[in-house]
Amino acid sequence: MSEHASNNHVPRAVVGRLSLYLRALLNLSVDRVATVSSARFGKLVGVKPAQLRKDLAHFGQFGVRGKGYEVDKLARRIESILGTEHEQKVALVGVGNLGRALFSYKGFESRRFKIAAVFDSKLAGQRVPGSPLSIRPVGDLRRTAQRERIRLGIIAVPAAAAQAVAREMGKAGIRGILNFAPVRLSLPDGVRVENIDLSSGLESLSFGLRSRRRRG
Amino acid sequence: MSEHASNNHVPRAVVGRLSLYLRALLNLSVDRVATVSSARFGKLVGVKPAQLRKDLAHFGQFGVRGKGYEVDKLARRIESILGTEHEQKVALVGVGNLGRALFSYKGFESRRFKIAAVFDSKLAGQRVPGSPLSIRPVGDLRRTAQRERIRLGIIAVPAAAAQAVAREMGKAGIRGILNFAPVRLSLPDGVRVENIDLSSGLESLSFGLRSRRRRG
Repeated sequence: MSEHASNNHVPRAVVGRLSLYLRALLNLSVDRVATVSSARFGKLVGVKPAQLRKDLAHFGQFGVRGKGYEVDKLARRIESILGTEHEQKVALVGVGNLGRALFSYKGFESRRFKIAAVFDSKLAGQRVPGSPLSIRPVGDLRRTAQRERIRLGIIAVPAAAAQAVAREMGKAGIRGILNFAPVRLSLPDGVRVENIDLSSGLESLSFGLRSRRRRG
Repeated sequence: MSEHASNNHVPRAVVGRLSLYLRALLNLSVDRVATVSSARFGKLVGVKPAQLRKDLAHFGQFGVRGKGYEVDKLARRIESILGTEHEQKVALVGVGNLGRALFSYKGFESRRFKIAAVFDSKLAGQRVPGSPLSIRPVGDLRRTAQRERIRLGIIAVPAAAAQAVAREMGKAGIRGILNFAPVRLSLPDGVRVENIDLSSGLESLSFGLRSRRRRG
């Protein structure tokens, strides 16, 4: 494990790119591609080959000169770096449209995240559509998260309710929160947040349109 | 406009960070903060001040030495760089849970993206819940997009249907696609795609948990 000793000094942007690399590798694997050159791989993910090699060098030596990367092997190594080689349980709070969409999102499962408990005080007692899970009140979060050893949570409630949910998650021992509410959360030390900004993709596209108009 | 002349050579990562900067600036503006130092601003967005200054330098001279950035002014400049100073219409295809969640997502509106037309062949003729819009068949995409001058689209259909929708969008004159389906789309030249990977946030959090376990 010594090659991972410096994980906590790895820049956030590098970790984000590891996800991108993993997604591309899993796609290549589905297409039955066994090896990929850093040039082709870089093109697939939109990252310069030199950057790609530098990112991966944080974690050890990958790739074989003149041959490229072994797709399945590198995918497994990245999963091991990300800690996703085994299933991880996730608590979802908020069962509105977004919560239901996230619950049925296939992409979590294929990356070994399992939504194991679902909370929404207004809908407590109902079943999650298409699932054997019952929706629990948010007050049950602590007990459930501890019993089920859940350390990751997703916030899919409206902005006004998000801070209170985040606080409950912190008390429940959840240490990583994926936040879809368009609000900055303040959290105790030791709890990380990833904010998902659904608008930023549209902004990048808008930038692209604008550049083209200007040229045309 | 000459200061923007090099927009098309701006790295993709820089454009992504502009969204991040804009979101932080809009939050500061809500908190009635008038100016922000590059040190504090960098901390808010998790980017080194030197990187921040370098990113903004692509587009001209911002900030006042010893004073920092004027929050509202910089926000307006970034909106103008991103092309989001005026409302842009967006076509949404797919009215399942995810589509409905995106339709009611407040974050698009606050960044001046308006979902102006909604398509789902299975639900055509129904109304979008809580809205006066009728759901149209995907076959209407071309006519509607041209009439309403829609150049951005969101794909919120299952993976198996996404490629066909993307092709229709291309024919309809849509030039930027935000794709939530976990599949790589192949598209004609001149159509850009931003793929949204909802798992990658959980992977970053998982990485954080793993680093901590290793240290502990």
